[in-house]
Order: sequence, then C-alpha cells, then structure tokens
Amino acid sequence: MEKGRLEAFSDGVLAVAITLLVLDLHVDPHSSSPLLDQIREGWPTFAAYVVSFFIIGVIWLNHHNLFRLATGIDRRVMVYNLALLLFVTAIPFTTATYADYVQEGGANARTAVILYGIAMEGMAISFNLILARMLKAGLTTAAVSQQQGRSLLLRYGVGIVMYPVVTLVGVINAPMMLVLYAVIVGYYLGPGLRALDAAETPPLR
Amino acid sequence: MEKGRLEAFSDGVLAVAITLLVLDLHVDPHSSSPLLDQIREGWPTFAAYVVSFFIIGVIWLNHHNLFRLATGIDRRVMVYNLALLLFVTAIPFTTATYADYVQEGGANARTAVILYGIAMEGMAISFNLILARMLKAGLTTAAVSQQQGRSLLLRYGVGIVMYPVVTLVGVINAPMMLVLYAVIVGYYLGPGLRALDAAETPPLR
Amino acid sequence: MEKGRLEAFSDGVLAVAITLLVLDLHVDPHSSSPLLDQIREGWPTFAAYVVSFFIIGVIWLNHHNLFRLATGIDRRVMVYNLALLLFVTAIPFTTATYADYVQEGGANARTAVILYGIAMEGMAISFNLILARMLKAGLTTAAVSQQQGRSLLLRYGVGIVMYPVVTLVGVINAPMMLVLYAVIVGYYLGPGLRALDAAETPPLR
Amino acid sequence: MEKGRLEAFSDGVLAVAITLLVLDLHVDPHSSSPLLDQIREGWPTFAAYVVSFFIIGVIWLNHHNLFRLATGIDRRVMVYNLALLLFVTAIPFTTATYADYVQEGGANARTAVILYGIAMEGMAISFNLILARMLKAGLTTAAVSQQQGRSLLLRYGVGIVMYPVVTLVGVINAPMMLVLYAVIVGYYLGPGLRALDAAETPPLR
Repeated sequence: MEKGRLEAFSDGVLAVAITLLVLDLHVDPHSSSPLLDQIREGWPTFAAYVVSFFIIGVIWLNHHNLFRLATGIDRRVMVYNLALLLFVTAIPFTTATYADYVQEGGANARTAVILYGIAMEGMAISFNLILARMLKAGLTTAAVSQQQGRSLLLRYGVGIVMYPVVTLVGVINAPMMLVLYAVIVGYYLGPGLRALDAAETPPLR
Repeated sequence: MEKGRLEAFSDGVLAVAITLLVLDLHVDPHSSSPLLDQIREGWPTFAAYVVSFFIIGVIWLNHHNLFRLATGIDRRVMVYNLALLLFVTAIPFTTATYADYVQEGGANARTAVILYGIAMEGMAISFNLILARMLKAGLTTAAVSQQQGRSLLLRYGVGIVMYPVVTLVGVINAPMMLVLYAVIVGYYLGPGLRALDAAETPPLR
Repeated sequence: MEKGRLEAFSDGVLAVAITLLVLDLHVDPHSSSPLLDQIREGWPTFAAYVVSFFIIGVIWLNHHNLFRLATGIDRRVMVYNLALLLFVTAIPFTTATYADYVQEGGANARTAVILYGIAMEGMAISFNLILARMLKAGLTTAAVSQQQGRSLLLRYGVGIVMYPVVTLVGVINAPMMLVLYAVIVGYYLGPGLRALDAAETPPLR
Repeated sequence: MEKGRLEAFSDGVLAVAITLLVLDLHVDPHSSSPLLDQIREGWPTFAAYVVSFFIIGVIWLNHHNLFRLATGIDRRVMVYNLALLLFVTAIPFTTATYADYVQEGGANARTAVILYGIAMEGMAISFNLILARMLKAGLTTAAVSQQQGRSLLLRYGVGIVMYPVVTLVGVINAPMMLVLYAVIVGYYLGPGLRALDAAETPPLR
C-alpha cells in the first residue's frame, strides 16, 4: 500500500485543522467594549492561536519526517495515523476551551488544561505507535539501523513524558501551560532543528 | 479520464469533512455549569465525534482500496463518486443532530437516528454503485477476476443490509446505535483488517 | 508555468467550498418544534444543499475537463481562474441565503434568487474567459482544432445565457429556480454526459 | 528535504483560508430589515471579501513563484513558511473585524485597520525571510544570479514598506484602506503581471 495517498490525506487534515484555529478568533461588534480592549482582554485567544498554530505546524513537520523514513505502510500504520489525526483535529477545540477558561482559573481552567493535555498526549502516543510499528514491520528505509531505531523511539517518547509534566504545571498555574508549550515549540523550531540538521537524524517528538 | 484528480478531490473533501466534525465540539464559557459537568453531560457529542471520525476514516480507507483496483474511471463513476461525497459530507450534520437529541430520547432521537442512517445507507449504496460500474465497464485491473468481482460486490453489499439494521436498533434504543457503529468500526480496523491483510483482498463495505 | 499546482489549488478550494455547504444544515435542539417538523419546514435548506452540492461537483468536472485541454497556463488564465474560484466559494453563502428566504417569497426571495444567479453567472463568464484565453494564447493541446475551439466556446457560452433565464424564472417563482437548476444538473450528469462521452468532446458549460 | 510536500501543505492551508472568507458573508433572516438593505448596509463585508480573496490569491501566486525558484528547502525555510501561513490564516479574522468596524469609524476602525495591516506586514516579512534564506543557503536554481537575487529582495521588500503606508492612510480614513489594497491587487493582477511576464522574472511582493 503506497504511502503517497496517506500523506496527502494527512496533509489535508492537518491543513484544515491548522486553518480552523482562526475560527476561534472573533470579536463582538455589538459589544460596548472598545475593540482594542476586547483584543487586550482576549489575549489568551490570540496567544493560544499562535502557540497551537506552531504546535500543529511542528506536528506536520514531524509527520513529514517520520514518513520520509517509511518505504511503505501497512493497515496498522493507517489506523494509528487515523488516531493521530483524531487528536490533532481536536486541537482547535481544546485551544478554544483553554482560551475561554484560562483567565477564570479554578476548577474550570484545570479541566481545560487537562483537555489540552489529553489531545497532546494522544498525539504523542500515536506518533510512537506509528514509529514502533514501522520499525517492527520493517517498513523503514535501510538507512535506519536497529540502534538508530531505538534512539528514535526514545526521542519520540520524550513527548509522552513531557506533556503530562506540562499539564501538571498547567493544573497549578493555567497560563504557565501556554508558556511551556511556547518554549517547547520555540526550542523545537530553533536550536532543536539546528541540532537535528547537524546530526542528520529525524526530529524528536 | 485519469483517476488521480478524482482521488485528490475526494481526499480533499474527506479531509475537510473529517475535520469539520470538530466544529460540533464546543462548550459554553458563559454557562454557570462547571466545564467538567458540561463535558460529562455532553458525552454524546464527544462519543459521536470519535465514532464518526473513525467512520469517515474507514470510508477513506475503503475509497483508497476501491480506487486502487481501478485502471481508469468513466463519467458514471464520477457521478456515483459525487453521490458518495454528498452523503459523507452530510455526516458532520447527522453526527451533530444525533448528539443533540440522543439523550432526549423519544421521537426526536428516532428521527436523528434515521437521519444518521440515511447518510450511512446512501454512502454504502454509492460505494456499491461505483464498484458495480467499475466491474461492468471493465475499469478494474486484470488482477480482479470475475469471481473476485462477485465476491467483492457481496462484501461491499454487507453495509447496505447492516446499516438499516443498526438504524432499527437505534430507533428502539438511540445510544445503542453509536455502540453498534463503534463495534463495526472497531471490528473493521481490528480483526477485519487483519483477515483482509491475510487474504490480500480488498476490504469490505 | 506548469498547470499542476493550479489544479491542486483549485481542487482544494472546490473541495472546501463543497464541504462548507454542510454548515448550512443545522437544527435547533432548543426549539420546541419536533425535529421532524424542523426538517420538513427546513426542506429548502436540504434541497438547496443537494442541488448546490451537485452544481459545485459539475463545476469541478468542468474544471477538470477544461484543464485537460491545456498544455500550460499563463498568468491571465490564473487571474480568470481566481475569479472563477471567487464565485464558486460564494455559493455556500448564496445557497444559505436562498434557503433562508425562498419560503418567505416577495422582494427578499427575489433578491436571494438574484444573488444566487450572480454567483452562477460570474462562474459561467469566468469559465468562458479561461477557455477564450487558452484558445487565443495557444495553450490548448494540438487535439483541439480551431473549429472545435469555436464549438467549445459556444457550448461553454450556453451557461451565460441560461443562468439569467433561470434567474428570471426564479424572480417570478423562487422555488422554481431550484427545480430548474436541479434539471440542468440532472441533465448534465445524465444524458448530457452520455452524449459527450459518445462525441468524445469536452463537456458543456 | 523535498519541497513538494511543503507546497502541497501550503496550497492546502491557502485553499482553506481563501474559502473560509465566505463564512463572514451572512445575512440575518430574522431581521426586519429587507435582504437588499442588509446587503447594501453590509457592503463592507462584501467588498472586503472580494479584496481579501484576491489578496490571498496573489499570495498563492507569489508562493508558487517563489518556490519555483527553489531547488530544495531547509528547516529554516519551513519555519518561515509556517510564519507566513500563520499570518495568512489570520486574514479571514482581520477581514471580518475590518468589515465589522469600518463604517463605525473612530478608534475601533483604526484598531481594525491596524490588525489588518499587522497580518499583511507579517506576511510580507515572512516572504522576505524565505527569499533571503533561500538565497543565502544556495537553495535557488542556477538561473537566479546574485544580482537577480538582490533585485528580487528589493521587489519582495516593497510590500514591507507599502503596507505600513496603506495602514497609515487607513488609520486616517478607514474605507480608503480597502480602496488602496484593491488598487495594489488590481495593479498586481493587471499591468504588474504583464510587465513581469515580459521581463520573465519572478513577481513582486
């Protein structure tokens, strides 16, 4: 089963999901509050928009890198890929919910942080299932040695441990969740990418 | 008429439809009800989101498998494919309607179950029309013998019988509809796929 | 300038536009009116959904057929293609507006019919501009003789005359507009396609 | 890293963003105001729809032209491309906000104009970062000489200077902002394209 159409479908879903984030951005023209104040008070929406946009962008980069290693796909990879897309398409919802409740704090903000974390954790686990399946079923290119495979699994496994930690911090302090995700994405797109370029190995998540 | 652009267009429509499901997920930040309660009470929305997501995912898999058998397409296949896409794009609507009414029960839940069933049945019939046309017009690869063609038609025909049964069960007990669809999708993505992999024949629906 | 990416972009826009039609479908779970009654009373929304879906589907078919004739594209074709996409992406809006007002009748229904007609007419004119430019700039395959070019222009020009007539009928009787479009699309997807298949010439609009 | 999938993903995002503009078009069937009056009073929404549609269309053309020059991409180009897409996907929001406030005038209209300008300026800067990176990292085809590279940078830099000027004019007179963008897009798609065709050099922005 050729991988081209799986990539095309995934690209389509990721492109729609990343663009749907914009639907969370809106102001109320009937409000008596000036537009500038609405935007100032709605900062979490804008900040969450930018961070979630780059998160989905990084997911796309990782998806791209992961399937570059594949010589083919089997049905199990397809199922795990569907699970990955399920969690990614949920991100516009978890982003909007987080933005709605982060300023309120309390139990609702904690719930919103956990929702956001569930989507991220589900995404990370799906990525690992895809990679593990590829390695086990011999679907990777010859360029990936067994040792590199183990090293890749470790790297892709980092997210599985990291996102619960970020979520825990967010449960204590909801805005800090967004700051941490911004740092992670910023690291990934900055020094992380440079290091990976140097090592010529596929990127982490 | 080459099949590449039909596949690309169909992939696009399926990718948008599967992602639009997320628009049904939403909470009301102005509600006095805690977020956790909103999510608990809104469980049908989340359950229906997951089930419909995998249903469209399986439709995509089937679409992929069906057109892998094709050497080309004619205009009739294009028309049936449009009908298929019409019913699939209706799924976000039938999913939202089902989620809105399943807990209320009564006549409204029955109507919602039937709406959901109409989209599924229309989808199944469209798939069969495409396959039947492909076989009749000699648009399938040489690898598909006449006997395999009949066997394929039978398999693809299963959905046509199965969805009215699921709908009937749902009319009696609305939540049971979702359970049955989850079982069908779970079977398809689990043992069903494994059996098909073994037989190296195209998948059922 | 290769035509592949123009086709891919157009396919993407058409796929999103055809799927966005579903956003017009919705029921109000807080209404005291039973779901079945809501759907019965909202029949124009469902009928307009189906007709507009197939209209965009036929536009996609025509787009596909038109660019199959092209050996390349120039920037002018790109601009006319953007105009085409502008009018097509307006169809979900004109469809929703028509469905909202068709039952009310009177001046509002007339305005809605005219809006729908403007999108259709703009689409037809854009198609003609693309074809005329292709022929003039020698961007068509050698298979298209000068005489065939003139014949094609005539055929693609039919829509330019037909849609104002349909609009005029709709101004007198708003529901009749939808019936006429359904007949046109039905003709195109049925006998029209068969005739074209026989003649092995590109389709009309 | 091959550029094909970056182009496909970008095409997808641009296709969704350009189509989502239509979601801003809507009328209120429950309003006592006649439909024609609603459309007349809502002219900024329609005018902004058309202008923003062609702006995204031109962005797509420029994206296409820019990556035609590329022999490959590196991760830095990918990051700048994500930034570009971030600002472009914000356009449906800035368009809707501008349309909501342009008639009101005053501080809110000024804020809306500045929001629109931020998305345009971010887009222009991202385009320049991509081009500068391509030139520096030797990712352009041999056909692009060093002198042409400098000339290209100048041309792509025009937008960086032009959009703040348009924004400044819009701050003084909000409707004038839309007029200026319409003139810029009209110039680009008309004489600008013809000049570029003649010079056989990539287009400006």
